Amino acid sequence: MKPFNKTHVTGGARTELHDALELTGAEISVNELPAGACVPFVHAHRQNEEIYAILDGAGRMTLDGETVELQAGDWVRVSPAAKRQIFASPEVGIRYLCIQVKAGSLGGYTAADAIL
Amino acid sequence: MKPFNKTHVTGGARTELHDALELTGAEISVNELPAGACVPFVHAHRQNEEIYAILDGAGRMTLDGETVELQAGDWVRVSPAAKRQIFASPEVGIRYLCIQVKAGSLGGYTAADAIL
Repeated sequence: MKPFNKTHVTGGARTELHDALELTGAEISVNELPAGACVPFVHAHRQNEEIYAILDGAGRMTLDGETVELQAGDWVRVSPAAKRQIFASPEVGIRYLCIQVKAGSLGGYTAADAIL
Repeated sequence: MKPFNKTHVTGGARTELHDALELTGAEISVNELPAGACVPFVHAHRQNEEIYAILDGAGRMTLDGETVELQAGDWVRVSPAAKRQIFASPEVGIRYLCIQVKAGSLGGYTAADAIL
């Protein structure tokens, strides 16, 4: 495997990075929804934890029926089984990352995993 | 485990999200380096893949001695063994995410792992 891969994301409705970066431990997408739009379905996962990062704009998620307001700077972890749907605000769009990883897969990290 | 956790990141030199979000498959940090600054050491990892996302500003990384220029919108996957160091540009700072996951840990994802 190459020591590294690099790509550049300019924008667009959805850019998936797994193949572009040859990721082996995550799938990451960069997503944009215009004002008033939503991902048109509720979904959950079998094994994967999802982490959402709100980059710009505002909106909301429903998580097992609970509504969570979203603004730039917010981060949300979602357990695999939670039923989720994301909506842009009626007034402004929302730009966000979705990071998908296998739940329970990370043991040591940062100091424990680093070699200086 | 709770169905979800939420936090808000306002800025600062480094914010680690593992504990704030009770992450189980990743560690994620939100980082800022002012113009001319760098992470003051080279490091590698034992088991973990790192993914860097450049949010704002510019800079560069050295990856096994090779220099890679960085600007907002760039994404870089780094293999565990690669020796890495990140630098802000002399003229502007850099704001970036570092996502740490166990290399090889993700099997199915997105369509394969989703339940609609």
